[in-house]
Amino acid sequence: MSEEKKISIAVIRRLPRYFRYLYDLIKLDIKRISSKELSERMGITASQIRQDLNCFGGFGQQGYGYNVESLYEEIGHILGTDKRFNCIIIGAGNMGNALANYENFKKRGFDLVGIFDVDPLKVGTKINQIPVYHMDELDAFATKQKVDIAMLTVPNKRINDVAKKVASLGIKGIWNFSPTDLRLEGDLVIENVHLSDSLMVLGYRLREKGF
Amino acid sequence: MSEEKKISIAVIRRLPRYFRYLYDLIKLDIKRISSKELSERMGITASQIRQDLNCFGGFGQQGYGYNVESLYEEIGHILGTDKRFNCIIIGAGNMGNALANYENFKKRGFDLVGIFDVDPLKVGTKINQIPVYHMDELDAFATKQKVDIAMLTVPNKRINDVAKKVASLGIKGIWNFSPTDLRLEGDLVIENVHLSDSLMVLGYRLREKGF
Repeated sequence: MSEEKKISIAVIRRLPRYFRYLYDLIKLDIKRISSKELSERMGITASQIRQDLNCFGGFGQQGYGYNVESLYEEIGHILGTDKRFNCIIIGAGNMGNALANYENFKKRGFDLVGIFDVDPLKVGTKINQIPVYHMDELDAFATKQKVDIAMLTVPNKRINDVAKKVASLGIKGIWNFSPTDLRLEGDLVIENVHLSDSLMVLGYRLREKGF
Repeated sequence: MSEEKKISIAVIRRLPRYFRYLYDLIKLDIKRISSKELSERMGITASQIRQDLNCFGGFGQQGYGYNVESLYEEIGHILGTDKRFNCIIIGAGNMGNALANYENFKKRGFDLVGIFDVDPLKVGTKINQIPVYHMDELDAFATKQKVDIAMLTVPNKRINDVAKKVASLGIKGIWNFSPTDLRLEGDLVIENVHLSDSLMVLGYRLREKGF
């Protein structure tokens, strides 16, 4: 990708959705698709699709549409699904368990290599075949094994301390499930997941429809 | 809100984030804030903020900034946090458990009234004080009690059947945690949560930084 241009983060945030839809098309053995058809399937405008996909080169051909497989591969490449990331989960509660059992992550290039908690009842067990270690073991673990991403599912009151700890170990990516938007110094990359944001949008749309 | 204008869904999707940040400002006893200061806190451009907030009326005053509390209240009103929704969870696995224990939902106007599963070991228990019923009891439950939103955390292979069932009972809102984008006929409102989308964006940003 020597011709790589800077793609806006707004477009990047839409790419996983294209990626999923294209994967479904491949499974349906559909070889090419117009922006209009893709638009109908995805519920976004054809002009938005053309604009988004134009950002990273001319995949669409007038009167032909997009080649599904090559578009899928290119988006996957941009998103880095051909690169693998080592991930740990900190917090083996319900959300940590749910994440540890998510089969999609591995498929997308994210390998879970360890789970950490402070609960003695959990330490020493396995979740989906991944060992649960004590938090005190995190330093040694991160020294022996490259960790790219820490998925944080700890209680909100502990989030800042845990995030600082993670950053101090040189882990560069944080996937944060606490309600607090994490902001840390340094060259960390943080994605804050706010489940209630999506629920509030659902509430808005229900109200808008008069329900 | 008689002067209510149609606000684009893209703006709506950003409102919960403003809502959270404004809540934090209130807790910090900050009475007013400029778009520039808010921009620095939130990491989005001041012009985006002005554009977004202009969509629903002139809250900002030149040289004064935004009144934090009234902006918070207005956004809450637009999002419908002053209205309450009755919610059920279908699927009492890890994700269902995590959602049932999320304290934020109640604060945002979402009341959990029941949990449904097919596992005899779970039926009859309670999660965070909410009873777990058998799926066979859903019809009768939805007849006796108004249910606005079904949060679906069932295995992917069951998602279509469960969603159809929910729709047939007149439940209008679906919060879908399966990897399948649900598309159903009728006047349903569906929010599909794709956790791996956010993880893929994290992966992209790490790669972009060369990690």
